[in-house]
Amino acid sequence: MSNIRILTEADLRGLVKLDLDAIECVEQAFAALATGDVVMPPILSMPIAPFNGEVDVKTAFVPGIDSFAIKISPGFFDNPEIGLPSTSGLMVLLSARTGMLEALLLDNGYLTDVRTAAAGAVAARHLARADASHACILGAGCQARLQLKALCLVRPIRTATIWARDVVKAHTVAAELSQELGIDVSAVKDAGAGVRRADVIVTTTPATSPVLEAAWLLPGQHVTAMGSDQEHKNEIDPACLSKADLYVPDRLSQTRILGELRSAIAAGLIPAETDFAELGAIVSGAVPGRTAPDQITIADLTGTGVQDTAIATHARQRASHAGLGTNFES
Amino acid sequence: MSNIRILTEADLRGLVKLDLDAIECVEQAFAALATGDVVMPPILSMPIAPFNGEVDVKTAFVPGIDSFAIKISPGFFDNPEIGLPSTSGLMVLLSARTGMLEALLLDNGYLTDVRTAAAGAVAARHLARADASHACILGAGCQARLQLKALCLVRPIRTATIWARDVVKAHTVAAELSQELGIDVSAVKDAGAGVRRADVIVTTTPATSPVLEAAWLLPGQHVTAMGSDQEHKNEIDPACLSKADLYVPDRLSQTRILGELRSAIAAGLIPAETDFAELGAIVSGAVPGRTAPDQITIADLTGTGVQDTAIATHARQRASHAGLGTNFES
Repeated sequence: MSNIRILTEADLRGLVKLDLDAIECVEQAFAALATGDVVMPPILSMPIAPFNGEVDVKTAFVPGIDSFAIKISPGFFDNPEIGLPSTSGLMVLLSARTGMLEALLLDNGYLTDVRTAAAGAVAARHLARADASHACILGAGCQARLQLKALCLVRPIRTATIWARDVVKAHTVAAELSQELGIDVSAVKDAGAGVRRADVIVTTTPATSPVLEAAWLLPGQHVTAMGSDQEHKNEIDPACLSKADLYVPDRLSQTRILGELRSAIAAGLIPAETDFAELGAIVSGAVPGRTAPDQITIADLTGTGVQDTAIATHARQRASHAGLGTNFES
Repeated sequence: MSNIRILTEADLRGLVKLDLDAIECVEQAFAALATGDVVMPPILSMPIAPFNGEVDVKTAFVPGIDSFAIKISPGFFDNPEIGLPSTSGLMVLLSARTGMLEALLLDNGYLTDVRTAAAGAVAARHLARADASHACILGAGCQARLQLKALCLVRPIRTATIWARDVVKAHTVAAELSQELGIDVSAVKDAGAGVRRADVIVTTTPATSPVLEAAWLLPGQHVTAMGSDQEHKNEIDPACLSKADLYVPDRLSQTRILGELRSAIAAGLIPAETDFAELGAIVSGAVPGRTAPDQITIADLTGTGVQDTAIATHARQRASHAGLGTNFES
């Protein structure tokens, strides 16, 4: 019989914020992925086509962390029609020493949102120019908001533009973010105009054909593409990867099949077996990130199990300190 | 916010027994696997070598079942040294229509034990002779007990022998099963002697080299090998597969890499791409099972996600009827 701590979404929203601590936590996870004997199996992914749904399961064992998370992420894209969110899910925390169930983090996807945005900040910290002050976000969903918020924590962002297919939504999000972040955020109708003005671009859409064109990219820019995590998704023109001076995957074995790299390989622009240093190698200092202000850099983020293990153990530790959660025996 | 039902191991042990209902439930799952548009992705498997552990995650979507289980099975083989069981885990039940979390089945591996033994019964029902009355079980763990119990539900078993490396354990289990099942169960020192006398043999060990030799097999016997579920495991002499008239995998794509078939392929006895009808095809009547009393048949069971989805929804339904479990909101 084990003693299990159950944390609700409300508990977790109170305990874990998208802040420098969360970014630090995820940054360390990437460093571990590059330097330690991390075990991170391929993502378990199951489509449920009759209901326009899918579920992904991610995990990773990180030496030095005594627990590991198994993260279950469902995405059911017709849910909004019946008043439910598209994404939900939970994280299950198990002991890395015994396998015993330790905690259930019933976050409905909140911790995934935080660790995903935190990875965007980690990428910007190592790849965007230090003086990057203009951002452009493509997309107007939850990650559009969080990615801009995350950028503001690591770069001196003063202005931002939001582009989305749904112009009304772009305006709403821009107005909200202006108020929340205290910077000038406006909606743009023309994605290209927004992109050309930016030092940092983040694509946050579920697009299956490019929303970012290579012709728009200018020297000195950094792009984080975080929307593609499935074989059919593609946010950025494959030619962007040829144009970039530095392409950085979160996990090369994943971006080859699920990320923007997949499309560039399919387009014949990049040989399938090309080796690219991962974000973790840059974070840990093993290889350099941006080395000149006029470089174009691209981070391709598909989401990794180490981020889940890192954020889940971070949340559980905070819950322990705060005495939050419900104990349950089984 | 969703309403989640939490069931403890005690709840689940009260609700779900290894009985004909459980066998029927698992049998239907196999039939669905053969006939329906089941989606069953490859198993997510993560070794945690520093602590002699591993974790497997299985799932399957079965059309017609409105929920699907994600089953998390840790196995940490040094646990007994500190007074913990080697295996534990839980099943997470999600809506197949929305992906929303519906129930947490904190079974510590109990439902896996039941559905695994039930699969043995399904195999015996379709492959063992109808008059099979003598069983031999290799191994003396939890599955040794349950597999014999399951056999007794589907075949007129009158005597059984138990063989295990630990002779004392074999005697203990034999004595307990004699009493529980009301049949003559005895321990044998010589596995070959037990096997030669049996109509049905079930191997239930974590062996990495064969415990069942091909020379022992006689016409008319059925063998269920259920211990191998990892790339390094192997319970039966690969020559058994050449000697058999009928080899039946639970899931061919799994037994090729995790089951007894893997060893037979590695030994060069069976070409890697050989096609074999799966247990579900036999259950559903698409192909015949045993067609003559003197055939030697082998079932190779690695464990499938459809069994997990089937048993988990069965348990949840019983809990609903009984009003058992704790409701939790998050």
